[in-house]
Amino acid sequence: MSITTPAGFEAAGIARGLKSTGALDLALVVNRGPSNAAAAVFTSNRCKANPVLWSEQVILDGVVSAVILNSGGANCYTGSFGFQTTHETAETVAANLGVSAGDVVVCSTGLIGVGDQVFRDKIVGGVPAAVASLSSDGGPDAALAIMTTDTKPKQAVAGGEGWSIGGMAKGAGMLAPGLATMLVVITTDADLPSEVLDRALRASTRVTFDRVDSDGCMSTNDTVTLMASGASGITPDAAVFTRALTALCHDLALQLQADAEGASHDITITVVNAASEDDAVVVGRAVSRSNLFKAAIFGNDPNWGRVLAAVGTTEAEFDPYNIDVTINGVMICKAGEPFEDRDLIDLTPRAVSVLIDLHVGAETAAIYTNDLTHDYVHENSAYAS
Amino acid sequence: MSITTPAGFEAAGIARGLKSTGALDLALVVNRGPSNAAAAVFTSNRCKANPVLWSEQVILDGVVSAVILNSGGANCYTGSFGFQTTHETAETVAANLGVSAGDVVVCSTGLIGVGDQVFRDKIVGGVPAAVASLSSDGGPDAALAIMTTDTKPKQAVAGGEGWSIGGMAKGAGMLAPGLATMLVVITTDADLPSEVLDRALRASTRVTFDRVDSDGCMSTNDTVTLMASGASGITPDAAVFTRALTALCHDLALQLQADAEGASHDITITVVNAASEDDAVVVGRAVSRSNLFKAAIFGNDPNWGRVLAAVGTTEAEFDPYNIDVTINGVMICKAGEPFEDRDLIDLTPRAVSVLIDLHVGAETAAIYTNDLTHDYVHENSAYAS
Repeated sequence: MSITTPAGFEAAGIARGLKSTGALDLALVVNRGPSNAAAAVFTSNRCKANPVLWSEQVILDGVVSAVILNSGGANCYTGSFGFQTTHETAETVAANLGVSAGDVVVCSTGLIGVGDQVFRDKIVGGVPAAVASLSSDGGPDAALAIMTTDTKPKQAVAGGEGWSIGGMAKGAGMLAPGLATMLVVITTDADLPSEVLDRALRASTRVTFDRVDSDGCMSTNDTVTLMASGASGITPDAAVFTRALTALCHDLALQLQADAEGASHDITITVVNAASEDDAVVVGRAVSRSNLFKAAIFGNDPNWGRVLAAVGTTEAEFDPYNIDVTINGVMICKAGEPFEDRDLIDLTPRAVSVLIDLHVGAETAAIYTNDLTHDYVHENSAYAS
Repeated sequence: MSITTPAGFEAAGIARGLKSTGALDLALVVNRGPSNAAAAVFTSNRCKANPVLWSEQVILDGVVSAVILNSGGANCYTGSFGFQTTHETAETVAANLGVSAGDVVVCSTGLIGVGDQVFRDKIVGGVPAAVASLSSDGGPDAALAIMTTDTKPKQAVAGGEGWSIGGMAKGAGMLAPGLATMLVVITTDADLPSEVLDRALRASTRVTFDRVDSDGCMSTNDTVTLMASGASGITPDAAVFTRALTALCHDLALQLQADAEGASHDITITVVNAASEDDAVVVGRAVSRSNLFKAAIFGNDPNWGRVLAAVGTTEAEFDPYNIDVTINGVMICKAGEPFEDRDLIDLTPRAVSVLIDLHVGAETAAIYTNDLTHDYVHENSAYAS
């Protein structure tokens, strides 16, 4: 049930003192082949961390032999010294594994601006021990080592007849603190070329990780890497593989949402009958980014007015006076007027469903977000101090 | 020092039980002329309250005789009954003043969805008493009557030789609760046609009210109305008038920021050396809408990484690795690397200055925002219950 479930992969998670608690904080995932096909997607933030700048080059040829990931520092805005740290990390992994440094993806998570000599020594100096710890059941340790404020590791598996996909994730969409970088590593023993992997990964992340929007803040370090070992000897149909990959990403995305820092509600905003999928996403995202709406849900207040006010800020196609809003199954607003009784809505459960019917088309999209709570403010105001 | 400072205006503020506290809650401002030229700007939210739908029509001919404003209910998404309430309010004001209903602007503020028969009766039934209370020193009462969660009334005056401008405001940009509609009434005894007033008002609001962004939420009810009585007999130069009007709007905008609900810091985000003013606004607004940045400031944490991460989400022209960030006078980040010591920054005062230097042009803009606090979450989660 981890990234080492698919054949051909080994992983390790070790402690290098990057976390003050002494917990595992350096993870290594190695693809033993026979294939080394890979794909990756990165944050669209223009302010990118050094590991992202490095890894964007690594993935260009569609070949990845290993991914090394650290918690305890984002190595973002740490200048040329920080980039050299990433480079040296990849070189050291490569030397210890007998592969090319240009095939080593590097991921970091933690505070921006953290990446000094001590940080470098802990990571680079830990590579031999990480390599020595590699095992075909090391997936769970790796999943632990990439956690920051995650309260639990996040793992999932999927697959088909004779082949499988494994995944691990950390972070909470773009949630805090320190922007809670989302790092994901996905492995498969299916035998697929990098072009197929790339298309499948982009199709999957578009409707899963890209739709988790805990607090509207975009990290500088987000990286999702997919590696295929081919060790099963099976080449599934691309559509079948994409469906399985999407299911796995959806599973991990909901685990991220459920563990979003400080949250007391998991809110699914579903927009239906939109003119286009883009419109549905834009409307859902506008609601997911309304602090007023999110604070209301924290207070168990089905404040549909704040939903419509957020919808109204978008350019999506709709008639403002022909929108229905249903919260937890109760249509509290129909055609822009109060409808069913707000007292029928029970917002005490953690799961909240908001259904917005735009009545103009047939497209739909769901956005996964959380409420705005005292714990969110606390954890994000007290983090760096 | 109020909207009745300029000659030609009378105002009143009375209590009609819309506020449960018994405080003043219905305001009336009347232009006694000789001119009735006016201009107005409204929320750009596509989900507009009934008073906005009404008043957008009123302003088309550039003539306004009176503005009536209520707190205690937004009359938004209250259907045709709500629109009829607005219409009947205007008709009643018109009948009592001997003017045309088509020259009466109506403004409401409060919860969306509130606008029943009781609400209507309190407003419409209060019109005769409001008219009876009109006086040439009624401005301060009117300013009190439009308050919702404002802790103090907001008034300002400006002007030139022999003419003056008075203004009152309520709300806090787009801050909570209930979206804290920003309502502003501005009076002047300058003698200017509506076309000049319209240009001056748009030029002024663009760089003042439009740049207060307390929590990124846009109200359904925002209305800024400017009326000119011409009673001074003076026609100032349009540029001179616009400068005075901008100064008055800036004063009121900072009063809104200073009273933003739940805030413990007033943050001015100034973007300099941008390629365009639009770029500067986009970058400033992105930072002002980062919950992570705002929570950090609440915690007195000069978290420049969260500033850059927000900047990086925009399409503005910049080199991500040539941006300086100065917080309260300390350049904590230079060219994308840590620079001066963060411990030099004192964030205990309420006023916070964030200066972002993009190093690509000569344009600048300032955005006025607040921190994200426990009080914000509390007041916006507990409001409707």
